[in-house]
Amino acid sequence: MSPDTGQAGMLMASEMAEQPRVLSALAARRTELAAEVRGALGGAAPVGIVLVARGSSDNAAVFGRYVLELATRRPVALAAPSLVTRYGVDDRLDGWLAVGVSQSGKTPEIVTVLERYGAAGATTVAITNDRDSPLAATAKATIDTAAGAERAVPATKTVTSQFAAFAILAEALGGDATLFPWDALPDAAAEILADEGPVAAAAASIASDTTGLVAIARGLLLGAALEAALKVKETTGILAEGASAADFLHGPIAVVRRGLPVLTLSAGGPTAADVTEFADAARARGGHVLAIGPSGDLPIPAALGDGLSSITAIIRAQQLARAISLQRGIDPDAPFGLSKVTETH
Amino acid sequence: MSPDTGQAGMLMASEMAEQPRVLSALAARRTELAAEVRGALGGAAPVGIVLVARGSSDNAAVFGRYVLELATRRPVALAAPSLVTRYGVDDRLDGWLAVGVSQSGKTPEIVTVLERYGAAGATTVAITNDRDSPLAATAKATIDTAAGAERAVPATKTVTSQFAAFAILAEALGGDATLFPWDALPDAAAEILADEGPVAAAAASIASDTTGLVAIARGLLLGAALEAALKVKETTGILAEGASAADFLHGPIAVVRRGLPVLTLSAGGPTAADVTEFADAARARGGHVLAIGPSGDLPIPAALGDGLSSITAIIRAQQLARAISLQRGIDPDAPFGLSKVTETH
Repeated sequence: MSPDTGQAGMLMASEMAEQPRVLSALAARRTELAAEVRGALGGAAPVGIVLVARGSSDNAAVFGRYVLELATRRPVALAAPSLVTRYGVDDRLDGWLAVGVSQSGKTPEIVTVLERYGAAGATTVAITNDRDSPLAATAKATIDTAAGAERAVPATKTVTSQFAAFAILAEALGGDATLFPWDALPDAAAEILADEGPVAAAAASIASDTTGLVAIARGLLLGAALEAALKVKETTGILAEGASAADFLHGPIAVVRRGLPVLTLSAGGPTAADVTEFADAARARGGHVLAIGPSGDLPIPAALGDGLSSITAIIRAQQLARAISLQRGIDPDAPFGLSKVTETH
Repeated sequence: MSPDTGQAGMLMASEMAEQPRVLSALAARRTELAAEVRGALGGAAPVGIVLVARGSSDNAAVFGRYVLELATRRPVALAAPSLVTRYGVDDRLDGWLAVGVSQSGKTPEIVTVLERYGAAGATTVAITNDRDSPLAATAKATIDTAAGAERAVPATKTVTSQFAAFAILAEALGGDATLFPWDALPDAAAEILADEGPVAAAAASIASDTTGLVAIARGLLLGAALEAALKVKETTGILAEGASAADFLHGPIAVVRRGLPVLTLSAGGPTAADVTEFADAARARGGHVLAIGPSGDLPIPAALGDGLSSITAIIRAQQLARAISLQRGIDPDAPFGLSKVTETH
């Protein structure tokens, strides 16, 4: 039972519904936020970039990994926090940019690693929902997502706003601004939230004893596929794996048996043919393909392109995870006795 | 039916059995291979490192990501090949080291990306089983694993030798040589191959209708956990997800239901307590925990430490995947009509 309303899933739904407003407000602040980041960097291009995150924030970082390389023309590393916290590596990061991502800004491991990276010479940036958090305090610049408090266990508005924050960061670092059609974003998000029919049909088409699912994309939507899988896992208990179409097409496709739900994510960009190729192969093995895309089973507006469609694709996945959860008699607001705060040290 | 013997799984078994010899031969050549890499770098420490791989090779690269950061004190990036092949990013990599990993050395996508990285200014190194391959031809230095031809679909000896190659590369870049107890490696591998009892018991303990599994580690054994999951997926058709204990302990643990096989990998190093914490949480949810570790259900010798135990842990996973496959009437040598060569462009 959800704490506020007594009605299962209402908390998650109300936080999902805030996304158009949160994203619109964040987009409106993007010039000022980008200026704060550029000020911290002092005009110098970073020699390398490392992103520090866990869980949903790590999925946003995977998106960041793509748009930041497009912007800076340097490969971007995802931190292995245990190297700092368990193996005691003493990195040398002069000239690097280190970005810590945590909704609460209080995850001790993320704060510790960003702090250490700063001490090792990196310019540090926080992406967090709380400008007064320890993560923001240790960072030289902060992109605060200002999504407001989130109480449902499955993170929704705080995640899509982290994806938007990485797009803002990419713009701050000189990325191609035409990749991110900000003006179209709030309406696109609202349009999807108002259109629950396709998700109801998709949820109903998944057998009630289904215990597995795969979520597949390639390129800029890979982070969204990982987030879709995570949302399904924690909200429904289904073992959902997110992966790249290029990785999954060969050996791992062996897991696609008759009826296995295969969620594909594509915005119709340069990797669209790869996702279609995978979907065809999955269908040939009897997989139950559900496509998130401009002309998919779970449609998303084409206007956002590869740059911002991760956000709308994730909203579709939030709807789907919530619908499957309710269908199974689980309260998505607080599933499986999970608690909200993560405290990885 | 396997092509040579007519007996299911004999090809995979014979290639697995070659691992002590292959690893011993590779270890014996490590000084000369390290010298080739150092010669290519011309004595300069790289300003950044990027690894290019897919599939099993990508799991070796995850291991490489850890040991190379320990050696060089710089975060290591895993390439997103689609940025080059689909989005046309034009990287600037002066002073960088780029490492391409492909068993055949013929995967077009990996060859293309390494070639482009070289043209962008990076010093390029190939890790491949074929010194005459296009990948080796484009690279300035090559660590050839010399594992011999591999014909079973599930890669075994070529994968463990890639893990060893990354340890050699880490030593070449100044890494702590005590992390890699080479002398103990061949006997440790042979000891496990001669000890099939624990794996037979483990395979028998997994219900015949099991469709999911998770493989969990943290730190230096994470790549081995991903490889264990991949081997189970492609050999048995079970949807097996590999992940970090730190990532899986919170939301994703919702998927652990009664009887779900949970494979944990640990060498008793600095992350052992994290893996134990996860195993306890999984057991509390009814998960069927099978531990690969020095005192685990599937024992591995303690002598290899965190540096080389990925290799012995993977051999345990190979045994387990093969045993489950045979138990289900699948021929692990050529499961599910999969073919050996991958051709991602």
